[in-house]
Amino acid sequence: MSEKFRVCIIGSGNWGSAIAKIVGLNAKHNEAFLDHVTMYVYEEIIDGKKLTEIINETHVNVKYLPGHKIPENVIAVADVVEAAKDADILIFVVPHQFIRRICSTLLGKIKSTAVGLSLVKGFDKKEGGGIELISHIISKELHIPVSVLMGANLASEVADEMFCETTIGCKDKSKAPILRDIIQTSYFRVVVVEDADSVECCGALKNIVACGAGFVDGLGLGDNTKAAVIRLGLMEMIKFVDVFFPGGKLSTFFESCGVADLITTCYGGRNRKVSEAFVKTGKTIEELEKQMLNGQKLQGPFTAEEVNYMLKAKSMESRFPLFTSIHRICVGELKPKDLINCIRSHPEHM
Amino acid sequence: MSEKFRVCIIGSGNWGSAIAKIVGLNAKHNEAFLDHVTMYVYEEIIDGKKLTEIINETHVNVKYLPGHKIPENVIAVADVVEAAKDADILIFVVPHQFIRRICSTLLGKIKSTAVGLSLVKGFDKKEGGGIELISHIISKELHIPVSVLMGANLASEVADEMFCETTIGCKDKSKAPILRDIIQTSYFRVVVVEDADSVECCGALKNIVACGAGFVDGLGLGDNTKAAVIRLGLMEMIKFVDVFFPGGKLSTFFESCGVADLITTCYGGRNRKVSEAFVKTGKTIEELEKQMLNGQKLQGPFTAEEVNYMLKAKSMESRFPLFTSIHRICVGELKPKDLINCIRSHPEHM
Repeated sequence: MSEKFRVCIIGSGNWGSAIAKIVGLNAKHNEAFLDHVTMYVYEEIIDGKKLTEIINETHVNVKYLPGHKIPENVIAVADVVEAAKDADILIFVVPHQFIRRICSTLLGKIKSTAVGLSLVKGFDKKEGGGIELISHIISKELHIPVSVLMGANLASEVADEMFCETTIGCKDKSKAPILRDIIQTSYFRVVVVEDADSVECCGALKNIVACGAGFVDGLGLGDNTKAAVIRLGLMEMIKFVDVFFPGGKLSTFFESCGVADLITTCYGGRNRKVSEAFVKTGKTIEELEKQMLNGQKLQGPFTAEEVNYMLKAKSMESRFPLFTSIHRICVGELKPKDLINCIRSHPEHM
Repeated sequence: MSEKFRVCIIGSGNWGSAIAKIVGLNAKHNEAFLDHVTMYVYEEIIDGKKLTEIINETHVNVKYLPGHKIPENVIAVADVVEAAKDADILIFVVPHQFIRRICSTLLGKIKSTAVGLSLVKGFDKKEGGGIELISHIISKELHIPVSVLMGANLASEVADEMFCETTIGCKDKSKAPILRDIIQTSYFRVVVVEDADSVECCGALKNIVACGAGFVDGLGLGDNTKAAVIRLGLMEMIKFVDVFFPGGKLSTFFESCGVADLITTCYGGRNRKVSEAFVKTGKTIEELEKQMLNGQKLQGPFTAEEVNYMLKAKSMESRFPLFTSIHRICVGELKPKDLINCIRSHPEHM
């Protein structure tokens, strides 16, 4: 029996396929891992052929990452239980609405000593109110420890092997080296921190701030104002984590998952772009989702709503005036131009 | 005799004139200050007329901030000793190469209880090697305490009264309220921190990072890479302050002077722009200064050189690979495309 680590990637979208390039290569070249990496692919028929077959024959995910070769040791598998069987490391990279279903399918069918690594962005609604971190859901459902990976990592640029950084949040120091080794390359640089909850929160909360940045762009308010909105957003992210997931470190927000991902999201990114259009066109978010995103949900307004639900329940809206006003603008309770008045007397200025 | 605070602004360039709009208005409307604010103007002749006369008659600095009214209670004065006479608050906002000369002119001619507020960006060379903070120079030369003001504050946008934030670094808590009161408006929001040296260092060091961001833009390396360079730059800023001006707080780098100013400088700003052109055209920095800046010196390469001088003297270049490689690229010792290889194994990734 081999003592090498077996790796499974659960998910094969744009980001999943980009990470598969990295993981496949590291598994092949690092003695600690089994060459053979499985990738769970939600089966689709593309031009009359199964996507798993296309990937296993051409080593290209023609639907979600065309133009990029996935290493040949990464094998597409349509059955998630089969893909995850005997894996020591389970890398979750699916849209967050599929997490609970996948976990219930996998329950009792994975190795008891497996560890998870979640690349899933966003919160989930908690039964009974509030929000729940995706890594906590996976951990509770499957009874395994789950680390997270977040950073300024646009999938297409990672696939192009352009230099970037990422952050792994791993509460168990003994697991950190193996997670770093399966992820790090010369162009994809990893920093591991223990403060996993802060890392994960950053990945969700940044999208709210990006809506604010988009409003500023739409209103034509200039670079100073945009920088102020991004900074106040960062301060509210820090405060939010401090209130709802206490015990984190300020330094985590200086990692790639924090300030770097926030910057890319507020200058590039779909949340910024749709929010700018929201101001300029006067259309609703729903209309713009249909028109600009083929009906896909925009993460920022959705997360803003979840966050507002918690803030309201705890009578904390006034301590988070930026998050609150962004939510109220998204749902039409405020005009975009009201944004600045809402943050003029921000608690940070007291 | 009045006990109201008398305010003098030393400098009347673009930023000086924008801040004069704010200071003039606050002096007029706040009982703590004398209405009458003096502004030292380096005399020039514009179309046959003295600039001081133009400002005092039209209340517009036609040369440095055309199109904006400076409040009528701000009086332009061509003699710096006369302007500063009896002032309780001296606001310094001149290019840093003029500071020593102005201080020697003012020595012994100002109120002994005066306090300074420096808006001057950049370091100065220390006699005997190393760098010296501008606020320290003013303080030593004039024997007064000097606070600093830095932030994401493009002068033209401040003059347009667009919402932004700024940071005042003030070591003496008892002086903080009066400095805040003369600066803060509904659109120009102040946060005061005690950690003045960190605030001032941010204002100089950000320009080095902006050169790196410009190189990334010139090389077409994408958003992830740019975010990584900005973040690593921020980490080197933090480490630099920790090594050379110890005792600061990590939280200061989350203020407007830190992350916010860094963002605007790395996305807008002349250092970024010239550095991008440096890569794309293959011209030297000197050639581009002539061509793009009418011969004005670019701050970033100059500060990079000063910083490199200190790092080299302390054998610390390898701990600051981004600052070091940016300097070496600016002086032609490295090619811009070498930048990424220099930071692939950054100490942050160890």
